[in-house]
Amino acid sequence: MGPGKHYNTVTYPVPYDKAFIDSIMSTHKDVMRKSTQSFVEKVKKRFAQIQKITGLIHTTAETLLFNASLISHLAQQNFDAVLTDPMVPTGSLIARKLGLPTVNLLRGIPCSLDMKAAGCPSPPSFVPRFFTGYTDKMNFKQRAFNTLIALLEPLMCRLLYWHFDHLAYQFLGEEVGIAEVLSDSAIWLLRSDFALEFPRPLMPNIILVGGINCNVRNPLPEDLESWVSGEHGFVVFTLGTMISDMPEEITAIFLEAFRQIPQKVIWRYTGSITGGVPENVKIMKWVPQNDLLAHPGARAFITHAGSHGLFEGICHAVPMLMVPISGDQPDNAQRLASKGAGVVLDILSITTESLLKGLNDIIKDPRYKENMLRLSSLHKDRPVEPLDLSVHWTEFVMRHKGAKHLKAAVHDLNWFQYYCLDVIVLLATVVLVFVMLTVKCLKLCFSRLSRKRKQD
Amino acid sequence: MGPGKHYNTVTYPVPYDKAFIDSIMSTHKDVMRKSTQSFVEKVKKRFAQIQKITGLIHTTAETLLFNASLISHLAQQNFDAVLTDPMVPTGSLIARKLGLPTVNLLRGIPCSLDMKAAGCPSPPSFVPRFFTGYTDKMNFKQRAFNTLIALLEPLMCRLLYWHFDHLAYQFLGEEVGIAEVLSDSAIWLLRSDFALEFPRPLMPNIILVGGINCNVRNPLPEDLESWVSGEHGFVVFTLGTMISDMPEEITAIFLEAFRQIPQKVIWRYTGSITGGVPENVKIMKWVPQNDLLAHPGARAFITHAGSHGLFEGICHAVPMLMVPISGDQPDNAQRLASKGAGVVLDILSITTESLLKGLNDIIKDPRYKENMLRLSSLHKDRPVEPLDLSVHWTEFVMRHKGAKHLKAAVHDLNWFQYYCLDVIVLLATVVLVFVMLTVKCLKLCFSRLSRKRKQD
Repeated sequence: MGPGKHYNTVTYPVPYDKAFIDSIMSTHKDVMRKSTQSFVEKVKKRFAQIQKITGLIHTTAETLLFNASLISHLAQQNFDAVLTDPMVPTGSLIARKLGLPTVNLLRGIPCSLDMKAAGCPSPPSFVPRFFTGYTDKMNFKQRAFNTLIALLEPLMCRLLYWHFDHLAYQFLGEEVGIAEVLSDSAIWLLRSDFALEFPRPLMPNIILVGGINCNVRNPLPEDLESWVSGEHGFVVFTLGTMISDMPEEITAIFLEAFRQIPQKVIWRYTGSITGGVPENVKIMKWVPQNDLLAHPGARAFITHAGSHGLFEGICHAVPMLMVPISGDQPDNAQRLASKGAGVVLDILSITTESLLKGLNDIIKDPRYKENMLRLSSLHKDRPVEPLDLSVHWTEFVMRHKGAKHLKAAVHDLNWFQYYCLDVIVLLATVVLVFVMLTVKCLKLCFSRLSRKRKQD
Repeated sequence: MGPGKHYNTVTYPVPYDKAFIDSIMSTHKDVMRKSTQSFVEKVKKRFAQIQKITGLIHTTAETLLFNASLISHLAQQNFDAVLTDPMVPTGSLIARKLGLPTVNLLRGIPCSLDMKAAGCPSPPSFVPRFFTGYTDKMNFKQRAFNTLIALLEPLMCRLLYWHFDHLAYQFLGEEVGIAEVLSDSAIWLLRSDFALEFPRPLMPNIILVGGINCNVRNPLPEDLESWVSGEHGFVVFTLGTMISDMPEEITAIFLEAFRQIPQKVIWRYTGSITGGVPENVKIMKWVPQNDLLAHPGARAFITHAGSHGLFEGICHAVPMLMVPISGDQPDNAQRLASKGAGVVLDILSITTESLLKGLNDIIKDPRYKENMLRLSSLHKDRPVEPLDLSVHWTEFVMRHKGAKHLKAAVHDLNWFQYYCLDVIVLLATVVLVFVMLTVKCLKLCFSRLSRKRKQD
């Protein structure tokens, strides 16, 4: 990302090189490998991978925050606002340091720290939690598990952000945690949409901008246009930039399935391939994904169900075959599948047969296309485009130096007060005392009455 | 309301006449009268007034719902949607009978039935209830009272709607109450705005359109324009259409105060006036309120703080002197006053002095105008005009035959499940059993250990 017409880029040194990042990226390949490793070994590997990634994030944040000349350079720019993704709260810390209002642009934070910081209720009875794969209609067992996760969320947030909590103290010199820093945010631009997500309460400073990335459509380059044209249409296949390389046995499964379908396949892939590539498959290092999906010839989209690709697919109404890998992807895939607009396959147990069946289903069964068209029409029928909405609220924050009138008055309340448990204890006591006094009075009356009768 | 270019009006007979309605309206005058009546008499009168009004509403609803030819006429029109105010749920009942999706346009329902029907959480810890006059920052006593009201709301709803619950059964022939009928609503267009209201959670099918009425501005009629012009500007004085007549002692107080200010006063009033009217006061049976407030000469707005007038005043940034009478007006007035954009006076204890002081404060103290300008700029800085937003969502419901994807999955849950009390009981039991077992185990171990030692 070099300097552009409307923005400047500042580069700062970090104590690692590109080879280190590549080595982290390549660990995705190991996770996908069908191996004879034991469960413990797998968990160990996964844990090592997570540790490497979080280490990278922390190092990047530290070298930025404690780069005094960089921070003073930023301070001198007299910015009006900070636009940041608070999942990695480096930008939020800088905003607090410089006393600037913050606009958050994010997909969400797994431990619901975003909702907590915005003071937004998320009743576990109908708001399914991350990673559960539940819908908004849960049976008792699901609701119990969902509630348990909701109760454990504060602990998960602590684990996820303990290093940043520590950084906050060091960098800001005040006793604040990340939760408190984030609760200062003026506006939350959430890359979410109710065409995909289940209805849930939101606070007035949470603005949904899911689908912000599917506005621009350009014609395809001439060679690609002539290649994709044909009566059977084509399949778009991308697994995002995180998956640069896949194990051989998996690429072989995909190639074998593609060999048996009449559609052409455009596959974004940077890894190595052994064996022949079928004639109907074109492998490219980069593809104009949005323009391809917008093309009338697109019949299916094989995707890892990352939110960007998902919204592009919904935007252009292309049924999906989803192979979620990590993060929010399994939940995304589950949601789209529950609406009948796609099929989910597990990358670890995928076979040529299951892949072929999935592809044929979504291409030949008209219900997938119909459901996707309905979803797409709901998603795109909106009073303002998500990009315009994002611009409006960002400029709003700049014009009014924040958006204090939209911030809920929940941050002075502790959780006991928030749920009015103190009041309920008081009311219950009053009712109890009243009942006890009534019973005592009645007893007294009865005993006097019976004594009187005996005397009579 | 006669037939227009874009709508038809249907008239149906009711078993009362205009004189009956006038007699109900005139009871407002009695309520305002400074009398020597006892408290019990006052309450009796107020209760009789409420009974008269609800009787009128019920009679109107019944004569419409059980007018078979009217209902079959409506059914034949093949409407796409019903637009109604569910405060009086006649329209909602017809929508359910005809199987049509409903768009609600409303200010709110006092017992929070609107929020309940939409499945919207309203935590009493920071969402002040109707009629309390509280803000979103409450002390313990206020929070306790607010929670008590929240707990009593279902009872209040029963009292308010018991007659309509009965009507629903008679008209629809099914065992449904009004709460269930309203929970079917597709979209809730709420005449509310966070420039005035305190931040609170909302559901995705609740759309805020407060200020929908202040779009159109026309120049004043020539005679009025020349009359209001002058270096001191003018005051707009209206108490809404409900207050047609006021007691003499109160009109005298207003006239005496107006005599002592340099501003001109335009007073919308249909009642009688004894004694002279000062030269700077013009009494009119109807005023172009919105156009007057939009005029640069408007210095102050004396209003009963009804939501329509309030939003027009905020729209045109005119500081207000508010004399709330009933309904949501005291809460509205309290909210605007808490933001420093107006002054509240009690109509029953009003004096020439208090009125003069209030008027002079809001006209001469620049802080009121500044606060009002700030409020107005927040209110008007929006991505879509409320009228366009209302049109969009109404047409959305017509295009998609409802908005099911925005409806929360709370209506299959009873309150015990909604608050996950069943899950909490289960989890608490599990924890309790675990603790008890642990204690028992430890006891057993200790006793064996001590026995062994003794044996040693």
